[in-house]
Amino acid sequence: MKSEKEKMIQGEHYVSSDQTLIADRERARQLTYAYQQTNQQEKRTSILKELLGACGNDVVFEGRLQCDYGYNIEIGEHFFANFDAVLLDVCKITIGHHCLLGPNVHIYTAGHPLDPTERAKGIEFGKPVTIGNHVWIGGGAIINPGVTIGDNAVIASGAVVTKNVPANVVVGGNPAKIIKYLDESKSGE
Amino acid sequence: MKSEKEKMIQGEHYVSSDQTLIADRERARQLTYAYQQTNQQEKRTSILKELLGACGNDVVFEGRLQCDYGYNIEIGEHFFANFDAVLLDVCKITIGHHCLLGPNVHIYTAGHPLDPTERAKGIEFGKPVTIGNHVWIGGGAIINPGVTIGDNAVIASGAVVTKNVPANVVVGGNPAKIIKYLDESKSGE
Amino acid sequence: MKSEKEKMIQGEHYVSSDQTLIADRERARQLTYAYQQTNQQEKRTSILKELLGACGNDVVFEGRLQCDYGYNIEIGEHFFANFDAVLLDVCKITIGHHCLLGPNVHIYTAGHPLDPTERAKGIEFGKPVTIGNHVWIGGGAIINPGVTIGDNAVIASGAVVTKNVPANVVVGGNPAKIIKYLDESKSGE
Repeated sequence: MKSEKEKMIQGEHYVSSDQTLIADRERARQLTYAYQQTNQQEKRTSILKELLGACGNDVVFEGRLQCDYGYNIEIGEHFFANFDAVLLDVCKITIGHHCLLGPNVHIYTAGHPLDPTERAKGIEFGKPVTIGNHVWIGGGAIINPGVTIGDNAVIASGAVVTKNVPANVVVGGNPAKIIKYLDESKSGE
Repeated sequence: MKSEKEKMIQGEHYVSSDQTLIADRERARQLTYAYQQTNQQEKRTSILKELLGACGNDVVFEGRLQCDYGYNIEIGEHFFANFDAVLLDVCKITIGHHCLLGPNVHIYTAGHPLDPTERAKGIEFGKPVTIGNHVWIGGGAIINPGVTIGDNAVIASGAVVTKNVPANVVVGGNPAKIIKYLDESKSGE
Repeated sequence: MKSEKEKMIQGEHYVSSDQTLIADRERARQLTYAYQQTNQQEKRTSILKELLGACGNDVVFEGRLQCDYGYNIEIGEHFFANFDAVLLDVCKITIGHHCLLGPNVHIYTAGHPLDPTERAKGIEFGKPVTIGNHVWIGGGAIINPGVTIGDNAVIASGAVVTKNVPANVVVGGNPAKIIKYLDESKSGE
């Protein structure tokens, strides 16, 4: 029989008041609290390596990082997030190499049922978010559960991304739509 | 003659530099600061009970809560707000039972006059916000002054809610519009 | 030959990993950290005067202020910003007299190239933001690089401002558009 944690990570309905999950969130809360309380870069990097499921070299979250569990977040090399990133990682959040996040970018994998009686029982479920290489997400943007963002894509500041974003485009607005096609011949990596 | 505090709560023009109001905001600032400085759940709950005008059982604000006064906020049973909630409560903010707020949800009752000469005099005024039972407000959503949200409504992440929202609908966008009607026969409570 | 700092302030392509710029950001980080750690108004004002390029009388940032450098920010008299202001000041951010910012207002001068190979090299560039007198920016609004906002303008909560805003209008939405013309005959100052 599956544990609530297994159900959660696999995107099935689960109950978040499970004791293991409460302990796991408490662990993440302690680590993110320690992270924001120190300015020493070495200590901050060491906390990130402990918190995250995978963490490349040269990964920096400026100021605070807030997340649910941490272990469901996998980040490639050369990553920079500006102030106040929020990553709700009940399912996997996978981020490629050379990605940039502006301040207050929120990435959500967590959702609740639309049926209020199910919500009142504490039932939740998530969908993974996958972000390619060389993606730049502008400040204040929100990435919704289940979204995949292609390589080299640029998400405009304040965009609310509800659908997949192909490679080599700029999207913006609420909900986000394609506002520009980038020249693929210039795409890096 | 009405005090500035009475004018404020009743939605009339008032001056926020009033000494009583400054002291009241200072009280809220001290309590919300203490709230975010401790991880002990019992202490946090006790601070909430002191800060808020009414606070049901099982009310949790994850991480930080920021508000103007606190005493104009009334929250029912079984409430959860994720990180960084902001509730500007110059007028009443009334929240029913079984409500969920994503991270960085902002609820505003505070406004300023459109006339710049009045703004420069420090004149402000508010309108109450009322939220029903079983409401789920997605992350990054903003609820504007005067808005009433009906039972079971779901506010999409990043929505900017400028008008009343009826029961049993999903709204999203900026400004928020109805994007889905929920099946009322499934509505709880 | 120009330093990276000179290139940055003048809006040319520059490399943010320059040693002088790292030290300058570290200075701002220390000062903004000290700012949010104290509730004493005198000490907070004194930190602001040290941090900012110019700072009039009666300038208040409620709670936290986060910025890149501070010295590129110039603010006039009688300014109030509510919780969690973020000002990315790689280029000048100039704010007039009697301006009000709601909570979580973000003002960006910083940008990255759309070409992912240039982004991967750490190349950045900015454009200045200029805000007139008697401007009110609603909570959660984002002001993008290069934008100028005219006197008495009101920016609705949650607006994403991507183009210049003339004097005496209300703009809102994502991207922000004019939603109301204000009566100029009532404009102050």
